[in-house]
Amino acid sequence: MSRKDIYHDTVKKALSAEGWVITADPLYIKFGGAEIYIDLGAEQLLGAEKDGQYIAVEIKSFIGKSTISEFYTAAGQFMSYRLVLAETYPERILYLAVPYQVYVSFFDTQFGRLAIQQFNLKLIVYKEKQGVIAQWVK
Amino acid sequence: MSRKDIYHDTVKKALSAEGWVITADPLYIKFGGAEIYIDLGAEQLLGAEKDGQYIAVEIKSFIGKSTISEFYTAAGQFMSYRLVLAETYPERILYLAVPYQVYVSFFDTQFGRLAIQQFNLKLIVYKEKQGVIAQWVK
Repeated sequence: MSRKDIYHDTVKKALSAEGWVITADPLYIKFGGAEIYIDLGAEQLLGAEKDGQYIAVEIKSFIGKSTISEFYTAAGQFMSYRLVLAETYPERILYLAVPYQVYVSFFDTQFGRLAIQQFNLKLIVYKEKQGVIAQWVK
Repeated sequence: MSRKDIYHDTVKKALSAEGWVITADPLYIKFGGAEIYIDLGAEQLLGAEKDGQYIAVEIKSFIGKSTISEFYTAAGQFMSYRLVLAETYPERILYLAVPYQVYVSFFDTQFGRLAIQQFNLKLIVYKEKQGVIAQWVK
């Protein structure tokens, strides 16, 4: 398994440990034509449910060299997925899952906090080694 | 010159031809620490002025294989740059410059129009061969 896939699995198990039922892996979202459908699906969103709450989870490993570059892509995806979900599955709340160290070094900085606020990002912060969720930023 | 750089030059000349004065190339925007500063600068925004109007232009070539992937990155950058500009140079309006063919095949579709509207994207659509601006989407 690639490191990226390992993180995917980590988040899945960490959600299960908190009582979430994984309802779709991947969760496909379809909108406005076949091309978008395939590419949106390629990111492998997770779908999960707990006590009647439905979430979609975009899992990011941030294992590349540039955190800010990966953030740009993650943010563009997040906002695109969110607008498609709002049109298609409005009851499902989208979260971006990020590693704890990246949360500390990037998201919990002056720029990161501004971006979370302005883009209304919702985060699941996971500890990849322990395989647990450290924090939900709602 | 790489194709990417050629497009940068094309947009610059096309703006000049419409009476814009290029005031900064690259336009550096700084916010919340050195790391963000460098990486934001690396994207080489243009700054331009005409009749007291100030704009910043993020030039995208979309020469990669996946338009939707490039869109995610471009959208994340655009929204990040815009929030930093709002804090630092609020009088400067940000535009995303995109090739005409990509505008037609992607931005002027059901998903593209929804994204433009929801993300409040402002576009400069350029014809790369003719070296002219085809359309402003404000």
